[in-house]
Amino acid sequence: MKTAAVLERPTARRLIAKQKAPPDIRMQQIYHAAAGVFIQKGFDAATLQDVAAAVGLTKAGLYHHIRGKEQLLFDTMMFAMDRIELEVLKPALATANPAGRIRLIASRYATMIVTDIQDFTLLIEEVRPLSRTHHKTIARRRRAFYDLVRDTVIQLRRSGAIPAIDPSIAALTFFGVIMWTAHWYRPNGRMNGPQVVAQIVDLTTTRLLRMEEA
Amino acid sequence: MKTAAVLERPTARRLIAKQKAPPDIRMQQIYHAAAGVFIQKGFDAATLQDVAAAVGLTKAGLYHHIRGKEQLLFDTMMFAMDRIELEVLKPALATANPAGRIRLIASRYATMIVTDIQDFTLLIEEVRPLSRTHHKTIARRRRAFYDLVRDTVIQLRRSGAIPAIDPSIAALTFFGVIMWTAHWYRPNGRMNGPQVVAQIVDLTTTRLLRMEEA
Repeated sequence: MKTAAVLERPTARRLIAKQKAPPDIRMQQIYHAAAGVFIQKGFDAATLQDVAAAVGLTKAGLYHHIRGKEQLLFDTMMFAMDRIELEVLKPALATANPAGRIRLIASRYATMIVTDIQDFTLLIEEVRPLSRTHHKTIARRRRAFYDLVRDTVIQLRRSGAIPAIDPSIAALTFFGVIMWTAHWYRPNGRMNGPQVVAQIVDLTTTRLLRMEEA
Repeated sequence: MKTAAVLERPTARRLIAKQKAPPDIRMQQIYHAAAGVFIQKGFDAATLQDVAAAVGLTKAGLYHHIRGKEQLLFDTMMFAMDRIELEVLKPALATANPAGRIRLIASRYATMIVTDIQDFTLLIEEVRPLSRTHHKTIARRRRAFYDLVRDTVIQLRRSGAIPAIDPSIAALTFFGVIMWTAHWYRPNGRMNGPQVVAQIVDLTTTRLLRMEEA
């Protein structure tokens, strides 16, 4: 598979084409607070009162900005996906070399995870409360990210850069190793953010894929 | 660290000493049904009525066997931990060779996960609703499992069987790769259970720890 094949996927083309303005700072604060509340309490137990309190608004004040709890969950996830596409997928698609691309994906995504861990674990842990349509939309965007990693593994294999591996298992485990960080990383722990990111890059590239060290 | 050091931990000694009778078949069915309901609906949204229906009892009938929803969650987790200790930790502690021990742990734990996935993901995903005391008990038992894997990584490293790795990161990622299976394994998917187990053993030993192939 040539690099071009990765870039020819419709989702990748669409990604490169679109350039959406980010939400204003107030909305970004609300999404960040909502992610924190939904992860800490669980979506079912969390209330919009909790979200309002976390961002310093009354519940009525919060309702000036949002339409309801499920819609807020969905919008918070969509904002997280926007950030992933802008900060990880777009530069990855601009990187022709597959070894460089997979390292960039691991490093940038891990950096986002250790910085705003709850914003991204929400995409995995609170999918169940989404409406059917919203669920499909999030699943389609997550799938585009997965496809990019899987295509890159295939490219690495075809170029002889890595020994044989099932590309689906490799891509799934790649995300698993990164997302699992949410279960053990503590901001004030033994390792700081950049040290954890370096570990994750080593785990996903040198170890999981058995790539040569950069 | 000698093998003996692993075996000298108090949790390990206690484990080998105790031999508890398993709960009767009816209780095992209730625990299995409860894990399924709690994972599918989330603990907060799930009702004892759901659990009763899943096991073919009335809610009153279920109350002959259990004391309440939080206690049922805890007992279900304790039963899962009993199974892990009997089927994984006990034979692992009887295996002197660290390479054989780590392969046995990966293989047996992965087999349990692909067989009864919800019973074990419950230990990770629904910890929040536990009472403080119950939470501590589950955390202590999970910690004994983690310590065994971490001690074994240290032993592998000291014997020169694997290249340098942070033993804590290695142990955490070892569990991450195995538990992440819950996010992608489907019983009727492309790979059957034993094929998935073989993949997990390869991912955790040959790849993560860079052990020589067996």
